[in-house]
Amino acid sequence: MGNQNSKSQQAAEQLLRDGRVALEWISKYLARAPELPVLSHVKPGDVFASLPSRAPSAPEPVETILKDLDDKILPGITHWQSPNFFAYFPGNSSPASVVGDLLSSGLGVQGMLWVTSPACTELEMRMLDWLVEMLDLPKHFLSTSSGGGVIQDSASSANLCAVLAGRERATQFGSNENGCDQRLTAYTSAQAHSSMEKAIKVAGIGRRNLRVIEVDEQFRMKPAALARAIQEDKAAGRVPCFVGATVGTTSTMSIDPLPEIGTICREHNVWLHVDAAMAGTAALCEELRSIHNGLELADSYCFDCHKWMFTNFDCTCFYVRDRKELTETLTITPEYLRNVASATGAVVDFRDWHIPLGRRFRALKLWLVIRSYGVEGLRAMVRRHIELTNQFVGWLRADSRFEIVAPVSLNLVCFRLKGPDSGSEVLMQKLNSSGKMFLSHTKLNGRFAIRMCIGQTYTEEEHIRAAWQEIQQHATEPAMAAG
Amino acid sequence: MGNQNSKSQQAAEQLLRDGRVALEWISKYLARAPELPVLSHVKPGDVFASLPSRAPSAPEPVETILKDLDDKILPGITHWQSPNFFAYFPGNSSPASVVGDLLSSGLGVQGMLWVTSPACTELEMRMLDWLVEMLDLPKHFLSTSSGGGVIQDSASSANLCAVLAGRERATQFGSNENGCDQRLTAYTSAQAHSSMEKAIKVAGIGRRNLRVIEVDEQFRMKPAALARAIQEDKAAGRVPCFVGATVGTTSTMSIDPLPEIGTICREHNVWLHVDAAMAGTAALCEELRSIHNGLELADSYCFDCHKWMFTNFDCTCFYVRDRKELTETLTITPEYLRNVASATGAVVDFRDWHIPLGRRFRALKLWLVIRSYGVEGLRAMVRRHIELTNQFVGWLRADSRFEIVAPVSLNLVCFRLKGPDSGSEVLMQKLNSSGKMFLSHTKLNGRFAIRMCIGQTYTEEEHIRAAWQEIQQHATEPAMAAG
Repeated sequence: MGNQNSKSQQAAEQLLRDGRVALEWISKYLARAPELPVLSHVKPGDVFASLPSRAPSAPEPVETILKDLDDKILPGITHWQSPNFFAYFPGNSSPASVVGDLLSSGLGVQGMLWVTSPACTELEMRMLDWLVEMLDLPKHFLSTSSGGGVIQDSASSANLCAVLAGRERATQFGSNENGCDQRLTAYTSAQAHSSMEKAIKVAGIGRRNLRVIEVDEQFRMKPAALARAIQEDKAAGRVPCFVGATVGTTSTMSIDPLPEIGTICREHNVWLHVDAAMAGTAALCEELRSIHNGLELADSYCFDCHKWMFTNFDCTCFYVRDRKELTETLTITPEYLRNVASATGAVVDFRDWHIPLGRRFRALKLWLVIRSYGVEGLRAMVRRHIELTNQFVGWLRADSRFEIVAPVSLNLVCFRLKGPDSGSEVLMQKLNSSGKMFLSHTKLNGRFAIRMCIGQTYTEEEHIRAAWQEIQQHATEPAMAAG
Repeated sequence: MGNQNSKSQQAAEQLLRDGRVALEWISKYLARAPELPVLSHVKPGDVFASLPSRAPSAPEPVETILKDLDDKILPGITHWQSPNFFAYFPGNSSPASVVGDLLSSGLGVQGMLWVTSPACTELEMRMLDWLVEMLDLPKHFLSTSSGGGVIQDSASSANLCAVLAGRERATQFGSNENGCDQRLTAYTSAQAHSSMEKAIKVAGIGRRNLRVIEVDEQFRMKPAALARAIQEDKAAGRVPCFVGATVGTTSTMSIDPLPEIGTICREHNVWLHVDAAMAGTAALCEELRSIHNGLELADSYCFDCHKWMFTNFDCTCFYVRDRKELTETLTITPEYLRNVASATGAVVDFRDWHIPLGRRFRALKLWLVIRSYGVEGLRAMVRRHIELTNQFVGWLRADSRFEIVAPVSLNLVCFRLKGPDSGSEVLMQKLNSSGKMFLSHTKLNGRFAIRMCIGQTYTEEEHIRAAWQEIQQHATEPAMAAG
């Protein structure tokens, strides 16, 4: 076992000792998270000011650092792992995921090329293939087909890669070579995630060339409006290159009609990307798979295991129908990265599937999560969240002070107090200030709506019941509280 | 402490139990890493084929998974944490960093906005400020000045953000709005990292508009050639927008002359970005800070703590002189992300500092690393690596069969066997096949060169001594071995 006093040996011992202390800290944290005020109420600059302005010269023991974690950092934490977290989308973790991430940190490999750790690439290929079957995604997303999947850090980054591949398809790699063709146009709905617009800007297509397609009364992209926009652009000499559709929008979890949108994209040979960041996980359950109807027409697709699939950030699964369209868009091979395995084409080099070169062994946490829960276990958790959401909807419907302002889809409810927006705004402020829950909001048809998303790993009936009681109680006198 | 049978409580217990098992696995792994063959020798597809084609339905215990980790994954690992890893650049980890990452996984927060966990943003600001002092970087990179720093996943991504900011400065945000101006031009040296070219393509500037500036005999960008290229482009009606300089190139660790390059950029108001991905860490040591001479003229700068600063991937520190130029390039604020703290402008929202929206609490691992080693401890480790490199150089120089083919800078040596390239190629193959070390290569002036980078966290004199013996032994009969 080598030199007993080597640096490797010393590190092994230190990690075991300090790691145990940290594990105990986290374990205690998770146990008390339900009691902590969900939304941090520190003032801007408080945490910064509490930390020394200079780094220490000499080593400090982990116990000292953990004490500062308790005293200085924890008050500034908004507790995403609290079962009372209902804001935005969940940013889930799970014991299996933390263990998987720990193993990844410990192995500390770089998966930029196949050769830099073949298992990092091939476990990822296998996990992404597992997910194709688990969610019943189109078979051309399998690594054994023309396409394949890759783990990216976020749906934002995946959306950008999709935009780039669409840009290059439309210009036959001319934008990569000569600069972005300014005749290019792209399309997404008014309810799409902001990362679509960001990607269009980053890719050099230009915000002005992004057509924001109107939505119907259920907040879904209108296919006829899309077709019209594409036709008008083509008639004007523009070059449509990308359509970004959404399965589960951020504001209301609405689902764009993929069959119609896909048919239009096929007709015009425009890249269709489907962003199912949060909702995709629902397809674990057979009865919910209709969310993906029409997905077989898409050129690329992404969903986030780090939202609703109990896998801590980052873990976006990004799939393409034809891997060559993606890799030829993003590849660059300098001499110092050349190697026999890559040169033969027998292997996948994931650095050509995204922006960064370096990459962490993220498939490990997915492996741990899927095996630790089993597919049935994951399904049961998703189904339970949807049951809880329906229960909450029932309570809302029974209370005439409230109205639900968008069709309830999966695990998200958009509601408000009847009357002026200020009532709902004040209600949300009071609830978030109470520390007992954290909710976020959106605007729908110009009006304020509270979003309640029920998908946190540890949320149980008692938490939504307590939340509902709190909501009812604070709703009683909104006008007074607003004063 | 809440419900003893709650999901949170169960998770706390499971994490403690399974986490300990995983910690023991990692600890044993680190202890035996020095004895493992550094470069994996599995065949393409071996690992993939060894894994079941379908996900399990039912849960499996962590012990079963760890057995598969040993049997199926480990043979496919190239051991970046082995003290015998000398390829590419180090991808370092350390016990403190693993513990920091573990805490981050456990807290599981999203730092996209200040409000989503103020401590995640403010600890990051403090850590990046600490590093400004630790490396003696220009004071305008401090968060308390006009600029500031942010953690990104990789230098590739940081380089892209710098390109985008340069693009928008040159076009007064017109490229974001209208699509990339095709008159734009960018500049980097023939020795710059491939991510520069990738960024130019992603940003829609176009590879053809990237001027690859020639280098001198020491592989440094020639300022006169840069000035000439910019002048010629301007004369031709082009719009120079970005210069990417390198402190520590990938091939030879050469350092571009920043004072001259910076003066040229100032004269033409062109964004100057400095990529010090690997080398930056050296500036911990006062006697090595000349690598950053001229950095005060740069608009942005990045270096990777995940290379030589003992912090596991990902942890690129990206600094800008004027944060507004960056955030106005990348910002987007949909309703569902609006909040009082952001609206007042009193806080930093790091989602506007990079491509992804979601972000992990990466400052924690930096906090753990810096405090656990102390600044003096980090300095001592860097100095030791440089001493070991000099020792290795001495051995090479004393053996007339070898030649050193680039100036030795910091912790990288480029060398080859005298005679035809095939000798060195075969030598490297044999060394990598031996399992006793892992080296990589580059080409310099068209000729093959072996790169030996000495910077792995656990590398000691015994490892470079053993490596040198192996190199000498295999060098004896290169011609025969080639047959």
